[in-house]
Amino acid sequence: MNFDIIRQEAYDANMQLPKLGLVLFTFGNVSAVDRSRGVFAIKPSGVPYDELTPASMVIVDFDGNVVDGKLRPSSDTKTHAVLYKHWEGIGGIVHTHSVFATSWAQAQRDIPIFGTTHADHNTVDIPCAPPMADAMIEGDYEHETGFQIMNCFTERGLDYREVEMVLVGNHAPFTWGKNAAKAVYNSAVLETVAQMAMYTEQINPAAPRLKEALIKKHWERKHGPEAYYGQ
Amino acid sequence: MNFDIIRQEAYDANMQLPKLGLVLFTFGNVSAVDRSRGVFAIKPSGVPYDELTPASMVIVDFDGNVVDGKLRPSSDTKTHAVLYKHWEGIGGIVHTHSVFATSWAQAQRDIPIFGTTHADHNTVDIPCAPPMADAMIEGDYEHETGFQIMNCFTERGLDYREVEMVLVGNHAPFTWGKNAAKAVYNSAVLETVAQMAMYTEQINPAAPRLKEALIKKHWERKHGPEAYYGQ
Amino acid sequence: MNFDIIRQEAYDANMQLPKLGLVLFTFGNVSAVDRSRGVFAIKPSGVPYDELTPASMVIVDFDGNVVDGKLRPSSDTKTHAVLYKHWEGIGGIVHTHSVFATSWAQAQRDIPIFGTTHADHNTVDIPCAPPMADAMIEGDYEHETGFQIMNCFTERGLDYREVEMVLVGNHAPFTWGKNAAKAVYNSAVLETVAQMAMYTEQINPAAPRLKEALIKKHWERKHGPEAYYGQ
Amino acid sequence: MNFDIIRQEAYDANMQLPKLGLVLFTFGNVSAVDRSRGVFAIKPSGVPYDELTPASMVIVDFDGNVVDGKLRPSSDTKTHAVLYKHWEGIGGIVHTHSVFATSWAQAQRDIPIFGTTHADHNTVDIPCAPPMADAMIEGDYEHETGFQIMNCFTERGLDYREVEMVLVGNHAPFTWGKNAAKAVYNSAVLETVAQMAMYTEQINPAAPRLKEALIKKHWERKHGPEAYYGQ
Repeated sequence: MNFDIIRQEAYDANMQLPKLGLVLFTFGNVSAVDRSRGVFAIKPSGVPYDELTPASMVIVDFDGNVVDGKLRPSSDTKTHAVLYKHWEGIGGIVHTHSVFATSWAQAQRDIPIFGTTHADHNTVDIPCAPPMADAMIEGDYEHETGFQIMNCFTERGLDYREVEMVLVGNHAPFTWGKNAAKAVYNSAVLETVAQMAMYTEQINPAAPRLKEALIKKHWERKHGPEAYYGQ
Repeated sequence: MNFDIIRQEAYDANMQLPKLGLVLFTFGNVSAVDRSRGVFAIKPSGVPYDELTPASMVIVDFDGNVVDGKLRPSSDTKTHAVLYKHWEGIGGIVHTHSVFATSWAQAQRDIPIFGTTHADHNTVDIPCAPPMADAMIEGDYEHETGFQIMNCFTERGLDYREVEMVLVGNHAPFTWGKNAAKAVYNSAVLETVAQMAMYTEQINPAAPRLKEALIKKHWERKHGPEAYYGQ
Repeated sequence: MNFDIIRQEAYDANMQLPKLGLVLFTFGNVSAVDRSRGVFAIKPSGVPYDELTPASMVIVDFDGNVVDGKLRPSSDTKTHAVLYKHWEGIGGIVHTHSVFATSWAQAQRDIPIFGTTHADHNTVDIPCAPPMADAMIEGDYEHETGFQIMNCFTERGLDYREVEMVLVGNHAPFTWGKNAAKAVYNSAVLETVAQMAMYTEQINPAAPRLKEALIKKHWERKHGPEAYYGQ
Repeated sequence: MNFDIIRQEAYDANMQLPKLGLVLFTFGNVSAVDRSRGVFAIKPSGVPYDELTPASMVIVDFDGNVVDGKLRPSSDTKTHAVLYKHWEGIGGIVHTHSVFATSWAQAQRDIPIFGTTHADHNTVDIPCAPPMADAMIEGDYEHETGFQIMNCFTERGLDYREVEMVLVGNHAPFTWGKNAAKAVYNSAVLETVAQMAMYTEQINPAAPRLKEALIKKHWERKHGPEAYYGQ
C-alpha cells in the first residue's frame, strides 16, 4: 500500500505551473486526492519547482494531518483539506498568485463575464470572496480560508461543480476540478480571462456583460447534454 | 486521390499559432481549402497542438459535412464552411482567442486606424461585428456566425479581399487570406495592431486617426499596382 | 574590392532585432555604412529574418541607388540614405515597429524624461516628429521621411550626435549611432523607456519630469568628459 | 588568501538577473559581502552578462576603494559601499532598472500594500525615497544615494532588516538581504508586487489597502517566531 499514483499526479500538475507562467518562485501549489483512502498529495512548503520529485509530495488527510512524507506540506494545506472534505466531487486543487487573477483579488472585484472565452468555462462572473473577518484571520487562518470560499458559494447559490474557480479578496485565486490536471487548466484559463477582462474595461469602460443567449450557448456546447466540443 | 496537401498546409499553419503566442491550450483553429474539390482541412476539436499530426486534420465540405478523417472537426467548422462557400477568393481561415484582439471584441469596438502598421494591412478601422440576435444564437450558431461576419462586411461596404480580418463582438477574431499561412500572418498582425491601438489611446485619449494620405500611401506601397515592398 | 565587412555588420545587427523582441515578421530593418566608399548595406525588403544571410544584404549609395546585390532593398531605404548623406557622424540606422515606441508615435507625443534610465541616454524628451504634409507623402515618401526627421531636429535645436532616436508621428521609431550595433542598442533602450513612461503616467498622471541636476549627472557619468561608466 | 567565495556568490547572483527578466543589457548589478574582511565583490561596470566570469568581479572596501580586480567596478559601487558600512546586517545588495518597479520610482509613489503577496515580504508600503537635493546630486552622487536611502528609512522609522527594498525616486529600485541570492529574490518579488499593484489600481481605483489582521498574519507565518512556511 503506497501513495505513488497521487504523488505522481500531484507532481506532474505542480510542474505545469511554472511552464504556464502562473508562478514566481514557490508561490503556488497543487494537490491531488485519493477519495478511497481519504488523503491527498500536496507540494511541500517552500521547495523550488526544479527541486521537486514525486516522492517529495506530502500525503495529508482531510483534517490536515500529515499521513506520509518527510517534508512539511504547503502552508495552504488546511485550505485544501477543508475543500476536499466538504466538496466531495473535486479531485484536484490549485492555488497560485498569478499576476492578473491576483490583481482582481486585490481589487476585491468579481471578474465580469465579457465574452465567450469566459462563457466556455463559467456562466457567471468569477466570484471574489470578501476578505475574512479578523477573528477568522487570527484563528486557524488557512482552515478558515476554506470556509470563506464555501460560504461565498453558498451565499451566492453557486455550485462548485459548475464554477471551478474563485478569488479570495486581498489574497489570490484558488481553482479545482475533477483531477489535478483539470484544476491546473482552470488556473490558466482564469489568468487569461482576468487579463482580457482588465483590457476590455480599459478599451471600453462601458463594456456590457455577455448576453444570456451567448452565455447559455457557449456553456452548453462544451458542457451540456448535447456538447459537441472535443473528441 | 487523397487530401495530403491541404492536410499538410492546415497542419503547418495550426502549428504556427502557439509559436506566435496566439493561443492558450486549444483555443484556436486553422483551415486550408482545396477549391477544385470543394473541401477544406481543419483542426480536430479540442486536441492539444503538440498531439496534432497532418493525418489528424479533418476534411469537410462547404456545407460542414465531414468527408474524411477519424476525429470530430473543430466546433467552429460551420463558420469556416460558410465563409469558404460565399467568399470564393479565400484559401485559408484562422480563428483564435488572442488576448488583445479578443479584448477589443469583448469591448465591442472597431480598432481605429492609428498608424502605418495598421495601414500596411488595411485602409479602414478593423470592423467589430455586433453580437448576434438571440434567434441566430439559439439556432445553428456557428453557421450563423459566418453570416454575421458577411453581413457586417455587406452593411459597411467592405471587400473581404482587402480587409482580411474581423472581430466578432463579445467573442473573438477571425482572419483569412489567399492561403492558410497568410491567414495566420493576418492573425498575428491583428494581435499586434490591437495591442498598439489600446496603448495609443492610453497614452493619448485624443489620438487622431491616421490621415488619408498616409493610409493611401502605405496601402499602395504594399498592395497597389506599383507596389515596391518585398521581392 | 567587395562589401563583406558592412554586409556582415548589417547582417549581425539585423539578427539582433528578433532576439530583442523588437520586430514581428519583417517589420524592421538595419543598415551599416562604409563612409570611405559612400555606401551602406541594408536588409532586403520583406525577407524573413531566419532566411537572411550576410550575402543577401543590399549595397546602396547615399542617393538610394542599388550598387550591389540581387534583391530589392528595404522599402525604407531612401530614409536611411537621406540620413547618411546629411548626418555625417552616423554609422548605422535602425527602423522598427516595436510595440511601445510605436504606440507613442501613434499617440503623436514626445516621450517625457521621467527617470535616470532615460537620462543615461538622452537629456531631453524623445522627440516625436509630426506627421508629414500631404504633398510630402504623395511625393517621394521615404525620401521625405528623412527630411521630416532632420527638420524636427533643426526646429528643436537638437543634435543628432546626442539624441540618437526619434519617433515619426503616426508611424514608428528610427534610431542611429556610431555603428549598426549601437543603433540597435538604442532601439532596445527606446522601447524600454517608452514602456516605462507609459506605466509612469498610469501610476501617477501628475508625474513630474526629471529634475535638471539628475539629467545632467546621469548624462555626464556616461557621456561627459569625466565619464566613469563602463571599462 | 583570496576572494573566490564572494566572487562566486556575486557572479551567481548577477547571472540570475537576466534569467529573471530584471535587466536589459547591463542595467543592473549585484554585490556580495565578506564582513570578516570588510570587502564586497561587485559586477564590473558596463560588461554584458554573458561575458561575466567569477574572476571578473571587482573587490571593493566599504569606502568604495578597489582592493582587487582588473576592471572598473559598477558605477553604483559607492551606494553599495555606504549601505554595507552602515547597515551591518546585510550580506548582498541588488540594483536594477526592472520595468514595473522603476515605473513606480519614476511616478514617485510608494507601492501600496494591496495583498498577501506583498504582506508575505513586507508589512508596510514599499517606500519611495524622494529625489535628492541638487547639492547631493552635484556632489558625490552615488555615495549620497546611499544616504538618501538610509535617511528615508530613518525618517519613516523603518528597519532595513524587515523592509529589504526601496525605490529611489526618479531612479530605480535597490534591494538587499542576508546574502546576494536573497537580495536577488527580493528584486524579483518587488517587480511582481509592483506589477500587481499597478493593475490593482487600474481594476479598482478605490482598492483599499490590506487590513491589519492579514498583514500581521502573512508576515508572521513566514517570518514570526512560530513561522510555518518552508522547511
